[in-house]
Amino acid sequence: MHPFDIVIKNGAVLTMDKQGTVIRDGVVGISEDHISFVGRNNGDYINAEKIIDAQDGIILPGLINGHTHAAMTLFRGLADDLPLMEWLNNHIFPAESRINSDFVFTGTLLACAEMILSGTTTFCDMYLFEDEAARACKAAGMRSLMGEVLYDFSSPCYGSIEKGFIYTESLIKKWRDDPLISIAVEPHSLFTCSPDLLVTANKLALKNHVPLIIHLSETEEEIRYVEKNYGKRPVHHLDSLGILGPHVIACHCVHLDRDEIGILKNRGIKVIHNPESNMKLASGVAPVHEMVSSGITVGLGTDGCASNNDLDLFGEMDTAAKLQKIKEMDPTVMDAETVLRMATIEGAKALGLENITGSIETGKRADIIVVDINRPHLTPMYNPCSHLVYSAKGSDVIHSIINGRLVMSERSLFTIDLKDVLEKASAIAEDIKLYRKD
Amino acid sequence: MHPFDIVIKNGAVLTMDKQGTVIRDGVVGISEDHISFVGRNNGDYINAEKIIDAQDGIILPGLINGHTHAAMTLFRGLADDLPLMEWLNNHIFPAESRINSDFVFTGTLLACAEMILSGTTTFCDMYLFEDEAARACKAAGMRSLMGEVLYDFSSPCYGSIEKGFIYTESLIKKWRDDPLISIAVEPHSLFTCSPDLLVTANKLALKNHVPLIIHLSETEEEIRYVEKNYGKRPVHHLDSLGILGPHVIACHCVHLDRDEIGILKNRGIKVIHNPESNMKLASGVAPVHEMVSSGITVGLGTDGCASNNDLDLFGEMDTAAKLQKIKEMDPTVMDAETVLRMATIEGAKALGLENITGSIETGKRADIIVVDINRPHLTPMYNPCSHLVYSAKGSDVIHSIINGRLVMSERSLFTIDLKDVLEKASAIAEDIKLYRKD
Repeated sequence: MHPFDIVIKNGAVLTMDKQGTVIRDGVVGISEDHISFVGRNNGDYINAEKIIDAQDGIILPGLINGHTHAAMTLFRGLADDLPLMEWLNNHIFPAESRINSDFVFTGTLLACAEMILSGTTTFCDMYLFEDEAARACKAAGMRSLMGEVLYDFSSPCYGSIEKGFIYTESLIKKWRDDPLISIAVEPHSLFTCSPDLLVTANKLALKNHVPLIIHLSETEEEIRYVEKNYGKRPVHHLDSLGILGPHVIACHCVHLDRDEIGILKNRGIKVIHNPESNMKLASGVAPVHEMVSSGITVGLGTDGCASNNDLDLFGEMDTAAKLQKIKEMDPTVMDAETVLRMATIEGAKALGLENITGSIETGKRADIIVVDINRPHLTPMYNPCSHLVYSAKGSDVIHSIINGRLVMSERSLFTIDLKDVLEKASAIAEDIKLYRKD
Repeated sequence: MHPFDIVIKNGAVLTMDKQGTVIRDGVVGISEDHISFVGRNNGDYINAEKIIDAQDGIILPGLINGHTHAAMTLFRGLADDLPLMEWLNNHIFPAESRINSDFVFTGTLLACAEMILSGTTTFCDMYLFEDEAARACKAAGMRSLMGEVLYDFSSPCYGSIEKGFIYTESLIKKWRDDPLISIAVEPHSLFTCSPDLLVTANKLALKNHVPLIIHLSETEEEIRYVEKNYGKRPVHHLDSLGILGPHVIACHCVHLDRDEIGILKNRGIKVIHNPESNMKLASGVAPVHEMVSSGITVGLGTDGCASNNDLDLFGEMDTAAKLQKIKEMDPTVMDAETVLRMATIEGAKALGLENITGSIETGKRADIIVVDINRPHLTPMYNPCSHLVYSAKGSDVIHSIINGRLVMSERSLFTIDLKDVLEKASAIAEDIKLYRKD
């Protein structure tokens, strides 16, 4: 009889626990869906159904993508380098008006393939036809927090906003006991949602004990819009509606004054930082060092593929570290460990999943990846943390376990028929290309 | 009899020629060291000793890394997130004081492996024991412009500066007729080189008709130092010494005022932009959009691995585009095509190699890479340029040809014994680690 279902050995275990424990030559034992052993290899024979040899590589918690629109993989590279409003109004919105459940299922599955192959095990999604996104995520064996995007105008998924609330509540009920999928209430933003919508959405979230997720203070245009229409800056506007609390996850938070940072901290708001999207759309640079220093929980996200254009958290970690150094003109801010925590345990905290995932500790679900360092760009290794943030690529991830299940090994996906997904994605793109020529 | 030695077919050929010609379903024929055919696949049987099927991928000129210190791969991750002077004085300089020819040969070979595997075919190097670097580069089959770093203090390679000039001249003679290696004269910077050194170095470059390569205006500290010691800003200081001319390649150029940009343009100076290193060391953001708009030739570089920490030009292209958008707060600047030209034909122009490499045109040497797009993060494809800059990774490069020689195919290196290099690199690192504990 085997004491473990899976054992990972022969690597440096970066636990990302509170003390930041690193176990050189460590071992991780997995039983069913959870981590049942973490420790040093003491030379005993470790017995398991499946033994994974990390070959002196790095064993770490699966990365957490705190904000994306997964199905937008199908719009990757459709339109770039354009002024924001031209990009949205002439390219993204028209393309989105034609999407359907097939689009979202295929696009999300494609996103899951990309994310698993680049080390992400959990993601937080906001999009349309989100029940299809949840089905795709479940099929891929990934963990996620998801929600249907809500706004004042008619949705191709649910129609009017009243039906949007009903749809969201049905999602919450349907996925309530799922081991992988959780549902949130997700009003889009302050410039697309009326105060009434925001207040109703918040009540729905509180009633069901689920997070409320919203884009917040992403662009200067948004600040101007909210100030013009509500006479307040965005954080004050949300606060005056009584919405800010520890269940709120605010994505972007690029343009905040010191007072707003104080409010976010005092209300226990969680923030998701999306540096590459903020750069590509020229939105600005979020005051992440200030937020982290003031004690706000900040996770890391890629945003959707239309504005990044990938879902690779290794690249995002590298950029997050470097961008903040240039913002503060100080090479010591956002050191590698801080960034790696942001992409793991802090991301889990931001999504309210810190008891489930984000670190390698006994009792937590087994969401674990292995990075191969036997490669020229990862040789020699002085510091595993530095390697992961500044040198490693998504393609260096060679094994991925989610909820105790080996979903990828030696770069092969076990949960997704990749050939089929790539073919379907290309077929959908042909349709989008035709439409663009209209 | 075969008309070509190698044919690459079944991909989109991004020629990077003057018109930016893209040939969908293109074919490239290679004879000996040069490109002998570029055109559309007209259905004829194309005969060659070796046929490479790009499988609907992208065929483009090999990337050009305009500035690096290749052997510093061996210091990757040795020290990060530190104040600049602490990083230099307590970590990099002490480690460098111990290097020798073995270190440089192994470190450069390791760098070549990383660069070939991430799509670079040409690089420009500045380091110590540069004859060893040239030997390693030659063994790897890469193209490069290289030179021994010159400065006022004693060098572990050549000793006093007089010997440095002699060493440089011997390199120029030794490698004069090499098909892959060219030599430049490379004074380090204005804060490590006296006016006398700079003037002598420049004479040496002009006499031998080779480029003069120097770090210029990288940090605010440098500006202050030069102003304090010479009463001028760096570009004016160099200009007053009579050094600025079209043979000068200036690396970094982060801190320039409008007047200095005008001088660089008027004197025909070439600039190499190193965005990731400038971010990681918190040096600043170079005014690249302004330089390019004013007609200055700007190439792209990774800088050394101690301050990046990789040699991957795909990541560097992505960062270069996004960083300039955020600097200008305009998403339209530094579009994908501009950045891709910077990493190919503009880089070739910057190094004075535009008749040799940087584009796929008949008569040029065959420096060509193939990017596989049959991957989730590159499916679907709307725009090859966008894909290369914003979505592709170095690891998506599956074939590399340099000077007509297939140096890498299906991710296997043909010119480098990778296992041997990784072992030697790790052994050298063990020695560096011991030394750090002193």
